[in-house]
Amino acid sequence: MNPSEHDASTVRPVFIISDRSGLTAETLCHTLLSQFPDNVFNQIALPFVDSPEKVADAVTTINAAADESGNKPLVFTTFVDENYSTTLRESKGEIFDVFSPFIGAMEKELGQQSSHQAGQSHGMSNLTQYTQRINAVNYALYCDDGLHLRDYDKADIILLAASRSGKTPTCLYLALQFGFYAANYPLTEEDFEKDTLPEAVLNHRDRLFGLIIDPKRLHQIRSERRPDSQYASLRQCQRDVTIARALFERYKLPFCDSTNYSVEELGSTIKHQLGMQSSLY
Amino acid sequence: MNPSEHDASTVRPVFIISDRSGLTAETLCHTLLSQFPDNVFNQIALPFVDSPEKVADAVTTINAAADESGNKPLVFTTFVDENYSTTLRESKGEIFDVFSPFIGAMEKELGQQSSHQAGQSHGMSNLTQYTQRINAVNYALYCDDGLHLRDYDKADIILLAASRSGKTPTCLYLALQFGFYAANYPLTEEDFEKDTLPEAVLNHRDRLFGLIIDPKRLHQIRSERRPDSQYASLRQCQRDVTIARALFERYKLPFCDSTNYSVEELGSTIKHQLGMQSSLY
Repeated sequence: MNPSEHDASTVRPVFIISDRSGLTAETLCHTLLSQFPDNVFNQIALPFVDSPEKVADAVTTINAAADESGNKPLVFTTFVDENYSTTLRESKGEIFDVFSPFIGAMEKELGQQSSHQAGQSHGMSNLTQYTQRINAVNYALYCDDGLHLRDYDKADIILLAASRSGKTPTCLYLALQFGFYAANYPLTEEDFEKDTLPEAVLNHRDRLFGLIIDPKRLHQIRSERRPDSQYASLRQCQRDVTIARALFERYKLPFCDSTNYSVEELGSTIKHQLGMQSSLY
Repeated sequence: MNPSEHDASTVRPVFIISDRSGLTAETLCHTLLSQFPDNVFNQIALPFVDSPEKVADAVTTINAAADESGNKPLVFTTFVDENYSTTLRESKGEIFDVFSPFIGAMEKELGQQSSHQAGQSHGMSNLTQYTQRINAVNYALYCDDGLHLRDYDKADIILLAASRSGKTPTCLYLALQFGFYAANYPLTEEDFEKDTLPEAVLNHRDRLFGLIIDPKRLHQIRSERRPDSQYASLRQCQRDVTIARALFERYKLPFCDSTNYSVEELGSTIKHQLGMQSSLY
C-alpha cells in the first residue's frame, strides 16, 4: 500500500541509519516490519551518516517526521561509534540499536573486545574476492540460456528448467552473492520429446539442479512475453512442467518449485542442497 | 583464512539456523563476526529448519561441533515459533535470537502483537513484484555495455564509466535488489578523444551516474582480461580514469569511486544519491 494514500496520522515513519550502506539494518528491519502487516510504514534509509554533522541532520529529519506524522518514528541503527547512538537517543524516535543486543554477549563468550570498525560486512576485503565475484557474473552471462556448453566443466552448478522458470536471475544471484559459477540450460522442445536429459549436461550430474514452477504462473509470465502464443498457452506450460519434473525425478536430481520463492531463497536452497561453500566469506 | 589450516581448538563454530532461508540472520551474523577479526570462525548455515525433527537434528549437529572443537558454538537464529528456540537452548551452543531483542519493544510501541509469520522478508509477495524484478534483470542485460541506446528512455539510471570499472555487476545488483531499470554505457576511446558526454546519454542527464576506479586496480583487472595490452597498460588506465572524472565534474554528474566499495555499497550509494525509491518494498 502506498503511504501517500493515507492520512499522515496512520503512517509510521521508519528510519534506517548507518555509518555505511545500512544493508544489514535494512535487511533486519524489513523482516521485523513484516511481522506487523496491519501497519503502514514509510521507510527512509539514511546511509553513510558518518560525521557528527550528519548525525545532527538525521536527528532533525527524525524530529520533523515525528511532528508531521504524529507518530513516534522507529529508528534502526548500526553505528559502531557510540557517540552517534547517544546523539540519536535525544531525538523523538524509538531507537533500535541492531548491534548492541549481541556484541556484549559475544565479547564475553569470545573473551575479547570487538574491533569497533564500521561497516565491515558489505565492504570489499580484497581484489581476489572482487575478481571472483566479477568473474562469476561474467561466467553466468557467458553460460546463460544454454550458451557455451563447452565451458560447463568450469560450472559450480548448472540450473535446468523450462523457458521462463526463473533460471537467469537465480544464476546471477548465485554469482553476485556467493561468487559461484552458475550456468543454466533451458529444457527445449527437443529435450521434452526425447524425454531424456540433454547430452550436454549428462557428464555433470553432480552439479545439476532443476527448477519447476506452477504452470499457471508460467502461463502468466510467458504471456507477458508472447501473448496468445502456443508457447505461452496453459496447456503447453502444463506439459513442459510435467515433463521437466518427471525428468528430474527419474534422474534423481535435486529440484525445487520456484513459484513461492524469491531469488534469495532459491539461491540459499540450491547452495544448501548441493552442499556448496562460498569462498567469499 | 581457511579453517582447515587450524587446529580444531582454535576454530569457533558458528551456526545460522532459520525456518526459512536464514538470509536475515546470515547478514547480521556476518556483520557481527567481522567485529572480531582475530578469530577463526567456521560458519555453517542450516536453512529451512521447519519441523521439530529438523530442530532436533540441528541440536545434534551443534553438540557434535561443540565436542569436536572444544569451543561453545555461537548460534544465530530467526525462529518465529518459540518452541523451536526453546529446544535449541538445550544445546551446547550460545544462542543469539535475532528477533527477540526487537519484537517486544516494537509490539509495545505499535500497540499490537506481531503476526508470528515465518520468513516474510525474502519471500515473494506477489506476481507483480516478481515480474518487476525479472523485467529489471532482463532490461539490465538488454541495455548492458552500451547496447540498445534507444531504450534508455525506460531507464531509472544509466551508469557511465570506462571499460571494466564495475558497471555490469552494479546494474545487475540494482535490478535484482531493487527492481530498478539500470542501463550502462562504457565511455570509449571516441568519447575520451572528444572529451564530451556521448550524445546517446545527453538527453537523460538526471539519470546519469558515473563510476571511477583507482587506475592501479583498473590496470590489474584489465590485465587479467588482456595481459600486456595497450588497453590494460597503467598509462591508459590513468588516462581513462582522469578523463572520465573530469567529464563527470564538468557536467556536474554524481559519481563515486568504486575501488573500496562492494556492489551492495555501490547500489545503496547510487539509490541514495539519485533519490530513487524501490517499488519492491
